[in-house]
Amino acid sequence: MRVALALEYAGHAFCGFQSQVAGCGVQDTLARALAKVADHPVRIVAAGRTDACVHASSQIVHFDTEAARPETAWVRGVNAHLPSAVSVLWASPVAEDFHARFAATARHYSYLLLTRPQRPGLFAPYVGWYHAPLDIGAMREGARHLAGTHDFSSFRAAECQAKSPVKTLTRVTIEQQQAYLRFEFSADAFLHHMIRNLVGALVAVGMGKYPPSWLAVLLAARDRTRAPATFAAAGLYFVGADYDPRFALPPTVRRVPLPAV
Amino acid sequence: MRVALALEYAGHAFCGFQSQVAGCGVQDTLARALAKVADHPVRIVAAGRTDACVHASSQIVHFDTEAARPETAWVRGVNAHLPSAVSVLWASPVAEDFHARFAATARHYSYLLLTRPQRPGLFAPYVGWYHAPLDIGAMREGARHLAGTHDFSSFRAAECQAKSPVKTLTRVTIEQQQAYLRFEFSADAFLHHMIRNLVGALVAVGMGKYPPSWLAVLLAARDRTRAPATFAAAGLYFVGADYDPRFALPPTVRRVPLPAV
Repeated sequence: MRVALALEYAGHAFCGFQSQVAGCGVQDTLARALAKVADHPVRIVAAGRTDACVHASSQIVHFDTEAARPETAWVRGVNAHLPSAVSVLWASPVAEDFHARFAATARHYSYLLLTRPQRPGLFAPYVGWYHAPLDIGAMREGARHLAGTHDFSSFRAAECQAKSPVKTLTRVTIEQQQAYLRFEFSADAFLHHMIRNLVGALVAVGMGKYPPSWLAVLLAARDRTRAPATFAAAGLYFVGADYDPRFALPPTVRRVPLPAV
Repeated sequence: MRVALALEYAGHAFCGFQSQVAGCGVQDTLARALAKVADHPVRIVAAGRTDACVHASSQIVHFDTEAARPETAWVRGVNAHLPSAVSVLWASPVAEDFHARFAATARHYSYLLLTRPQRPGLFAPYVGWYHAPLDIGAMREGARHLAGTHDFSSFRAAECQAKSPVKTLTRVTIEQQQAYLRFEFSADAFLHHMIRNLVGALVAVGMGKYPPSWLAVLLAARDRTRAPATFAAAGLYFVGADYDPRFALPPTVRRVPLPAV
């Protein structure tokens, strides 16, 4: 039987999603907890393999099991074996042709950026930081150049293993709430470090270093060395993935509403 | 010269505000950083001495110094010497008769409570948790019994050093935003563990274990053994204190707006 799970996790507690020899990946941690409940070794596939320090509010994974367990065993039972920085939100039996990675038709990320003179003290692992106000109007104008189907080679990490640098960015928005900016990105798939590189370029526009149209120039250059440095991982959240409705999954995208403190 | 500072910090990174032999208090950490900038030992007094794992969005402190430094030295200079879980928000020279603790006319706390079946994974150190929905109407009705001047002995920790158990609770509100509840408490001063004990009692009303009027009975009993257990520290935030306007301080209360992820 194939089972799909939604997970939330605090990325700074792990060395990334992917399994590591040291066993410090979210994947390793989850595999150990699932194996205890399933009573056999478990292999996990995820919608998006987040880097170290990148968070998830709705990571979607699947695994195969021979164990017949009620859904609560895959949620409450597994959570009892997981550390406090990761929690299973739901579990759902799913068709054998479901695949958390290959069946995902879109992926969604948010980036939280604190803009103020003082660095964050209270939520430091959960927000990126820039020390001055940014021109949101210019950033939004620049973001319009990024939307659509493009060769994103200028925003691609050297280690990226994607077959093609051409991706379709269906959503790139920037909202402001007091000192916080929230960026939202949706695409069929993302290149390695693509969002953190896009945030770095948008911030360069927001600080007035380049005009909004410079983002079109960067895209056209298809040259990573022309774009600014990769922005901090701390503010990045994987917020979910889309799947065909025929899989009848519980909600697979989850924007976390945090009230004011 | 006397200087006032506002601080934010992540409480789970420290063993409480107060100085400890092990040097793990916020006070120890701040004193070390201030001493580097001042070039002499510094003694710190705070508006509210928070427990281990209790956060602050606006802790107000003061210290005396012989060093003449620009305000930026007490903010950016000190932040360069502080760990990532604490940050100075502002510094302001203040009259010699200002006292962060004794001049505070009111103190404000918030408590964030996540109510859902699954324990938190993403923001675990920043929220309290209850596994089921709560009856907000009953809790609000109960809260009305708590507002006002009362003997709060039923909500006082055994180790509490306050001279009197009589305090004036000027504000106790409960708001809901999706799965989160935010409690706000304001008083002239609070007893040790008072807010966490009040939250525990309000949750007992919210789960239907007791009627709202039970809170009046608890208050009248003046007996800690009658009230429920102290609620988790994780969701508690010191959000500021009030001072006479003649001290002309920058804003001393700061409700942190966190946007949805």
